[in-house]
Amino acid sequence: MVEQKATNVHWHEGNVTHDHRQQLLGQKGVTLWFTGLSGSGKSTIAVALEKALMERGKLAYRLDGDNIRMGINKNLGFSAEDRTENIRRIGEISKLFVDAGLIVLSSFISPYRSDRLQVRELHEASEFPFIEIFVDCPLAEAESRDPKGLYKKARAGEIKGFTGIDDPYEAPDKPDIHINTAEMTLQEEVDLMINELINRGFLLAYR
Amino acid sequence: MVEQKATNVHWHEGNVTHDHRQQLLGQKGVTLWFTGLSGSGKSTIAVALEKALMERGKLAYRLDGDNIRMGINKNLGFSAEDRTENIRRIGEISKLFVDAGLIVLSSFISPYRSDRLQVRELHEASEFPFIEIFVDCPLAEAESRDPKGLYKKARAGEIKGFTGIDDPYEAPDKPDIHINTAEMTLQEEVDLMINELINRGFLLAYR
Repeated sequence: MVEQKATNVHWHEGNVTHDHRQQLLGQKGVTLWFTGLSGSGKSTIAVALEKALMERGKLAYRLDGDNIRMGINKNLGFSAEDRTENIRRIGEISKLFVDAGLIVLSSFISPYRSDRLQVRELHEASEFPFIEIFVDCPLAEAESRDPKGLYKKARAGEIKGFTGIDDPYEAPDKPDIHINTAEMTLQEEVDLMINELINRGFLLAYR
Repeated sequence: MVEQKATNVHWHEGNVTHDHRQQLLGQKGVTLWFTGLSGSGKSTIAVALEKALMERGKLAYRLDGDNIRMGINKNLGFSAEDRTENIRRIGEISKLFVDAGLIVLSSFISPYRSDRLQVRELHEASEFPFIEIFVDCPLAEAESRDPKGLYKKARAGEIKGFTGIDDPYEAPDKPDIHINTAEMTLQEEVDLMINELINRGFLLAYR
């Protein structure tokens, strides 16, 4: 199979480009930016979507608190300044992965409109696609799920500046995709995302 | 072809893992860390190796000054502290790409042994492979090439703290691979790297 893959990539001179990598992968690089309250279902959708993409032979990569906050951003705290730098770095990393040809699934609360706009502009400046997905869930519902027990701690005052409790969540005005997790099943959410990716031309047939 | 690729990845439950991505790509993720003086030939090798890998259907991604210093690290200067943070972030990003299954080609002078060791340890802590390649070239030779005119500026005092002129380059004691660019052709260098990658098991047949 190695030879067969290689024959699908043709060029004679010059460096390997974004297009060559996309051709090799049979997909288009894109950042899917999931924003929403803690407990809204961002990571759940991202994990399930990653699996659905892999089943189609598509390469995705998830960026989330586990591999970012514990890694490259471990020297950042939760001040307004650090939150903005946190999102800026994630945006830059997402862009590198898109350049590499991957479908990036970035799941961060990212509560501030201006930060999300900055990440969008960063992508658009390089003509890389950026899709904002509002993972919409009423606060009461997210708080009742409380998968990490964080709302309980925030209500008890053990966590300060928690989004939705004592720090604002600025919902997207015009998200590219709107998912209401309180009214959809996970399968419906994944199907919606896959259909959006197909319709927008990101999942190419393997050439 | 989409279906055929998909049949090569089998699992029923659980999240997509590092191994699934490597299987999809038919390769093993690894960071190839090219260190050496400005003008030693790091980027030249990386560009040519990336092309040789693509011709074999393998997905690589280059990290270099162009996409890092202008992007995620644009808020860093050239103080000792900032140089260390620069390399730390590049190490963390390299690790994310390895996790995604890619062959990372990181080309940075990275003059300090302790910084390079930090990146190695970062990888080894997650059992990700890290290969240090010493792109060895005598200072006089690198300075005579001076592709970006930087040595001239450093000698004229227009650039301060330039590696090899008024800032030290700490050569690797025991690099994993040693390339003497003053004595090898580019083709020989690429052949050496491809052979090393094959022998170390990073270029799998497509399964």
